Amino acid sequence: MAKEETKPIRFGILGCAEIARKVSRAITLSPNSTLYAIGSRSYEKAKTFAASNNFPSHAKIYGSYDAVLDDPNVDAVYVPLPTSLHLRWAVLAAQKKKHLLLEKPVALNVGELDKILEACEANGLQYMDSTMWMHHPRTEKMFQFLSDPNQFGSLQSVHATFSYRGSPDFLENDIRVKPDLDSLGTLGDTGWYCIRAILWAANYELPKTAKALHKPKYNKAGVLLSCEASLLWEDNRVATFYCSFLSDMSMDITAIGTKGSLRVHDYVIPNEENEALFRTSSNSDFGELSTGWNPKPSEFIIKSDIPQEALMVKEFANLVGGIKFGDSKAENKWGIISRKTQVVIDAVKASIDNGLESVLIRY
Amino acid sequence: MAKEETKPIRFGILGCAEIARKVSRAITLSPNSTLYAIGSRSYEKAKTFAASNNFPSHAKIYGSYDAVLDDPNVDAVYVPLPTSLHLRWAVLAAQKKKHLLLEKPVALNVGELDKILEACEANGLQYMDSTMWMHHPRTEKMFQFLSDPNQFGSLQSVHATFSYRGSPDFLENDIRVKPDLDSLGTLGDTGWYCIRAILWAANYELPKTAKALHKPKYNKAGVLLSCEASLLWEDNRVATFYCSFLSDMSMDITAIGTKGSLRVHDYVIPNEENEALFRTSSNSDFGELSTGWNPKPSEFIIKSDIPQEALMVKEFANLVGGIKFGDSKAENKWGIISRKTQVVIDAVKASIDNGLESVLIRY
Repeated sequence: MAKEETKPIRFGILGCAEIARKVSRAITLSPNSTLYAIGSRSYEKAKTFAASNNFPSHAKIYGSYDAVLDDPNVDAVYVPLPTSLHLRWAVLAAQKKKHLLLEKPVALNVGELDKILEACEANGLQYMDSTMWMHHPRTEKMFQFLSDPNQFGSLQSVHATFSYRGSPDFLENDIRVKPDLDSLGTLGDTGWYCIRAILWAANYELPKTAKALHKPKYNKAGVLLSCEASLLWEDNRVATFYCSFLSDMSMDITAIGTKGSLRVHDYVIPNEENEALFRTSSNSDFGELSTGWNPKPSEFIIKSDIPQEALMVKEFANLVGGIKFGDSKAENKWGIISRKTQVVIDAVKASIDNGLESVLIRY
Repeated sequence: MAKEETKPIRFGILGCAEIARKVSRAITLSPNSTLYAIGSRSYEKAKTFAASNNFPSHAKIYGSYDAVLDDPNVDAVYVPLPTSLHLRWAVLAAQKKKHLLLEKPVALNVGELDKILEACEANGLQYMDSTMWMHHPRTEKMFQFLSDPNQFGSLQSVHATFSYRGSPDFLENDIRVKPDLDSLGTLGDTGWYCIRAILWAANYELPKTAKALHKPKYNKAGVLLSCEASLLWEDNRVATFYCSFLSDMSMDITAIGTKGSLRVHDYVIPNEENEALFRTSSNSDFGELSTGWNPKPSEFIIKSDIPQEALMVKEFANLVGGIKFGDSKAENKWGIISRKTQVVIDAVKASIDNGLESVLIRY
């Protein structure tokens, strides 16, 4: 490996969103990346953010997003702006040759996402959405289980949830429930994870149709606060999910296969940062007189040296490094997974908007 | 308490079903009941059953169901016959003044169940369906949690599963998939538990509508092998369930409330006979930087001196004893819960039969 290859990827961050604090820490914790620049419409805000989030002393503080994109030393940008601003800033970033780590929901609809993905592709850039749990080593272990024809068999039913309870102020004033900023509401925020979890459990095979299961709840501005939906595959397998800002925290996947099943209760953010748990059962029966399980379910604890968001940054930076210092091409699987998630969101949204009719999912 | 009151309730069993072995053991283990008679269309079969299931030496062996019902010393009958025979034998049992512990599914439809319930009521008899998990002390503890306005709040979403994998022979030849014996298939067998779990989690408030979520799978004889459905309450809350003979064993309840959530993975039959576990979370948030759960979820282990089916027999026999030896009237809540479960089954069945339309649930 040439010496050049060992240099960390230099990140610029657009905006001082709360989630950017978590990702700044992740960039610091990731061995192959460094916090290089922060831009905000307010220079003072950017300066305060950098100071309170362990930015190196030499990090660039900018009073605009443009300045970050114009800095030739920025390799990649992390974009945690409100969703309605993604199209503009993500495309601009790509035009300025910045690799793109994009916060979810990635776009207001798949039409917007396509423009972002096209801009990245046209410029040979790595795209990745910031879905942190995808990068936890537990996720890989669970996926191995789901892929095991003897232990799990083929997926028959999967249910996913992601909910948390917004305060009254959150439900009216948070960015995530503002029609001009994040018009998808809970569907784009917590629903994104449920849909990703379902696609993941189905080895990314897209369902055929989506259908909302009830008249959802909205805030005064008409933004979704709670939603439950079902997804149906060609072969009549069903997935269901529940996403909400109106319930206590839940992050469940219950995936049932012909030969086994998988359960995890904290797939989005593990209870503990340094280890995470999942449970499986395989080829169980009721035992003698149907008085118990034989064999019993299993429990697996997967340790993680650095948090899942740092592993995400590490993987992203590794792909960026391969392009920058080597002769790798961008890994397009992250764009494909992102797009599949978005088309399902769009279909669920359409089902809600058309009175709970079943809506065809088109990739 | 008069001396008479301490006498155990004498059970007669109609038929030698496999499940009758488990319930025979439960009657033996229950302190207030005794195995008194077994009847089968084959005297030899009844004799063998009694010998291999620890019947007392003085137990009566009969070569017909009628003989059990005609024995004046039989206080109560347990009826594990195929569902299509319930109407006839349960009503006849009631006419012969036998209290009734009825295996589920209790009837082919609510019209049949009503005749059974009317016969019990007309004769002042105790009715109970044989849904064992209702009687585990864990169930009561979980219900306390669900009823706690500060720990759980109000139910927002609930998902239940019960599945197990039938062998190819089971799927064509078992009683549970024979159109003339148990025409409800998996909906009457595993679906019964899912629906009961959902009603239980909703404090028995009946949903307004039921809708099957996919074209179910059938065996060659046209009996349901797998089904997924949603239930919708008046206030737009949703429940979903998955029941199947085509998946590995699963028995999940995921109930999410405004302030907490409940998870159990073996609600139908606990992994272990002498203790059972459930998990809750309450008022959790993401903690600093959204890197974990605060507070963490809790785990509760509930011990049980005797198995849940023996606790069921004990409760039933206690109610019967109150009528026989005291001046108690029959406890009608068991009939009400049974009927609510049946009307939901009927609505799901109707939704399947009418091409997945939403069907009104009428009590």
